[in-house]
Amino acid sequence: MTTDNLQKQVAFIKEIDKLKYIQRKTKLFNSDRHENDAEHSWHLAMMTIVLAEHSDKPINVLKVLKMVLIHDIVEIDAGDTFIYDATKSHTNTAEELIAAKRIFGLLPTEQAAEFITIWNEFEDGTTDEAKFARSMDRFEPLLQNTSNDGGTWVEFNVPYQTVYDKKKAIQNGSTSIWNYAENLLNESVDRGILKKQPD
Amino acid sequence: MTTDNLQKQVAFIKEIDKLKYIQRKTKLFNSDRHENDAEHSWHLAMMTIVLAEHSDKPINVLKVLKMVLIHDIVEIDAGDTFIYDATKSHTNTAEELIAAKRIFGLLPTEQAAEFITIWNEFEDGTTDEAKFARSMDRFEPLLQNTSNDGGTWVEFNVPYQTVYDKKKAIQNGSTSIWNYAENLLNESVDRGILKKQPD
Repeated sequence: MTTDNLQKQVAFIKEIDKLKYIQRKTKLFNSDRHENDAEHSWHLAMMTIVLAEHSDKPINVLKVLKMVLIHDIVEIDAGDTFIYDATKSHTNTAEELIAAKRIFGLLPTEQAAEFITIWNEFEDGTTDEAKFARSMDRFEPLLQNTSNDGGTWVEFNVPYQTVYDKKKAIQNGSTSIWNYAENLLNESVDRGILKKQPD
Repeated sequence: MTTDNLQKQVAFIKEIDKLKYIQRKTKLFNSDRHENDAEHSWHLAMMTIVLAEHSDKPINVLKVLKMVLIHDIVEIDAGDTFIYDATKSHTNTAEELIAAKRIFGLLPTEQAAEFITIWNEFEDGTTDEAKFARSMDRFEPLLQNTSNDGGTWVEFNVPYQTVYDKKKAIQNGSTSIWNYAENLLNESVDRGILKKQPD
C-alpha cells in the first residue's frame, strides 16, 4: 500500500510542475516579468506564516498553508482568470471542478478527497481559514501593483472603485491588514496610479 | 505595535520577492528552463504535504513547511551553491549567516529570531523535522533529473557514487521514499543517464 500510494503521489508531484508555466497578469515586485502561479503560491504561503498574527479570528495555520499552496493548481487545466475580467466567472467554474477532479484525482483516494475539500473550502470562503487565505490572495497583488507604479491597474485601466470592491475581501480576514491596505489604496490615488475616474 | 510589526513584515514580504530571480542548476520537469528558488520552495512544500505519511518518525508538518518555505531565502544574498560543486561549502557558510541576519532581520525582533532558529534547525539536519525537510530537498531534483534524461547528472558529468552519496540523506527522513529513490538511481544507471564511471 505504501508503494502504491507513493507511486500515485509521485505522479501528482510531477504533474503539478506545470503550475510553474501558468502566468498571472501581475508582475514581480521588480516588474520585469510576469509572476507564475507556483511563485505566487509560495509567496502567499510565506505571507501566511509572517502575517498569521493579524488574523481577526484564531486560525489553523497549517490548514491555511494547504489552501494557499494548492488554491491555483486547477489553473493547470483551466488557466488563470484575470481578477478584473468582468466577463468571466471567478469561483468554482465547471471547468475548474473537472480540473480539480483530474489533478487531485492522481493522488490516493483519501488524499484526493482531502485536497478537493480544502480547495472547495478556499473557494467558498466562509470559514475563518478560508477568509484569511483569501485575504492573502488579495493582498499580494496590491503590494505588487503599488510597488510597480500601478501595475495591472494602469495597464488595464482599472478604476479605484473596482479595485476597492475586490480588495475589500481582505477585511474578512484581518482588520489591521485591511486598514493598511486601505491606506495603500488612498496613497495610490494621490500618486495618480489608481484613478477614481477611468480614462 | 500591530502597525509597526505590519510595516516590518511588509518590508520582508517585498524583499523576499527576489527569491524568484535565484536560478537553480536543475531544470523544470518539462526541461525547457531552469527552476528558480521560489518555485523549488513551493514544490518542496507540496511534497511535504503529500508525502508526510512516509516519514519514519512522527513530524510536526507545520514546522517542516516553514523549513522548506524559508530554507533558500539566504540565497538572495549568498547565491545558489550547486550541490555537486565540491569546491564550495554547503552548510551555514559565513556568507549565509550574514544573509540570514540581514533578511530575517527585516522582521519584528521575535519573529526574526524564530525564522533564524528554524533555518538553523534545517541546516543542522538533526531533528526529525529537519531530516524530513532535507529528504524532500534531495528528492525533488532526483525526480527532475530522471524526468529530464539525466538533467544535471549528464550536463555536469556527475558519477553515480557522488549522486548516491548526496541522495542517501533521503534515508534519514523516510525509508520508503529512500527505497523508491534507490530504485530510480538503479534504473537511471540501466538507462545510461547516470554513469558508474565518469566519462
